[in-house]
Amino acid sequence: MPKHTASRASPARIAALVLAAGRSSRFGRGNKLLVALDGRPLLAHVVGAVVASRLEPVIVVIGHESEQMKQVLKGYDIVLVHNRDYTGGLSTSLRRGLAALPQDIDAVLICLADMPAITADHIGRLVGRFDPAQGRCIGVPTYHGKRGNPVLWDKRFLLEMSAITGDIGARELVATHTDFVYEVEMPDRAVLIDIDTPADLAAAARER
Amino acid sequence: MPKHTASRASPARIAALVLAAGRSSRFGRGNKLLVALDGRPLLAHVVGAVVASRLEPVIVVIGHESEQMKQVLKGYDIVLVHNRDYTGGLSTSLRRGLAALPQDIDAVLICLADMPAITADHIGRLVGRFDPAQGRCIGVPTYHGKRGNPVLWDKRFLLEMSAITGDIGARELVATHTDFVYEVEMPDRAVLIDIDTPADLAAAARER
Repeated sequence: MPKHTASRASPARIAALVLAAGRSSRFGRGNKLLVALDGRPLLAHVVGAVVASRLEPVIVVIGHESEQMKQVLKGYDIVLVHNRDYTGGLSTSLRRGLAALPQDIDAVLICLADMPAITADHIGRLVGRFDPAQGRCIGVPTYHGKRGNPVLWDKRFLLEMSAITGDIGARELVATHTDFVYEVEMPDRAVLIDIDTPADLAAAARER
Repeated sequence: MPKHTASRASPARIAALVLAAGRSSRFGRGNKLLVALDGRPLLAHVVGAVVASRLEPVIVVIGHESEQMKQVLKGYDIVLVHNRDYTGGLSTSLRRGLAALPQDIDAVLICLADMPAITADHIGRLVGRFDPAQGRCIGVPTYHGKRGNPVLWDKRFLLEMSAITGDIGARELVATHTDFVYEVEMPDRAVLIDIDTPADLAAAARER
């Protein structure tokens, strides 16, 4: 048998979790994830990028207006998880999604559904440098040094992540494990762009 | 080197989680876990049994009246976890406790703090038959066939457990994974005895 290290013999299996259950309460004009940008619903942008990255499985957590969301997601090779408690906040969706992960994954990319500029290239840069054996366990994308999303997490942190509540956010979890964090500087600011308001959406449309 | 299977070469490392953060709302006479039974606070009974079982680590989640609880727990070799959200229910304590587990455990015994008749013998019978390689992953104690507590869980189920809310309880989680469940019939009814009311406490005192 050829001499391989365990990590080279079996490349990391990386799942993705897309959090898409929220109510867009700051948007003020209906469900932002259903609003069109470049002719596609906002939700389709990030899901398309993740699926194109060949992460597997891709789990999408929905809640608010789930029937319309399902329509948008038809045809994508994803696992749908319905969070009945979505009014309880992002942490409830995170937990439901984490609970749906297979046992044999090595890491999971946590994606916010309202980040339409993310592409498979950004994800590939983040995943490509993941290497727990070298201590690179939590991958954080940056642009001009400013940290953004999505963040890639080694499986060892998932139970802690599942205990996150409003008062202990994912940012604090990154801070707690700073020795395991690696940053990947990106060629553009996509990792900093999220859509909270109609003005954000207009700005994102202009930048494209 | 002697021929061993992996499981024999390295025996399972099993942690314990004692849920002791609640408000005893059904008890009606203060904090039931601080009430004396056989000269010791109720809390000391289950914690003493778990520590005597040599499970490691023993994590005790406290919340309500945490200062008095800490006094009771002085001198025990345990890890204290404080759940600030204990009014949010048992599931919040479960999550905080699970998040505090070390990476290298194989399983965790989930113990309710209000079960004073549990001894190291009950725990030993449950732990002794744990064998994931044989499909015995979720150990449930019974008496005359009726299922009780504590329940022993292989680590593979912990993320699902962490997503439990009021509407999806641990009982449903056992039902979901029925193929992995093994039952251990106990010599007495300790695994069915919990203290909710002063009448329960009086009955438990009479039985001793």
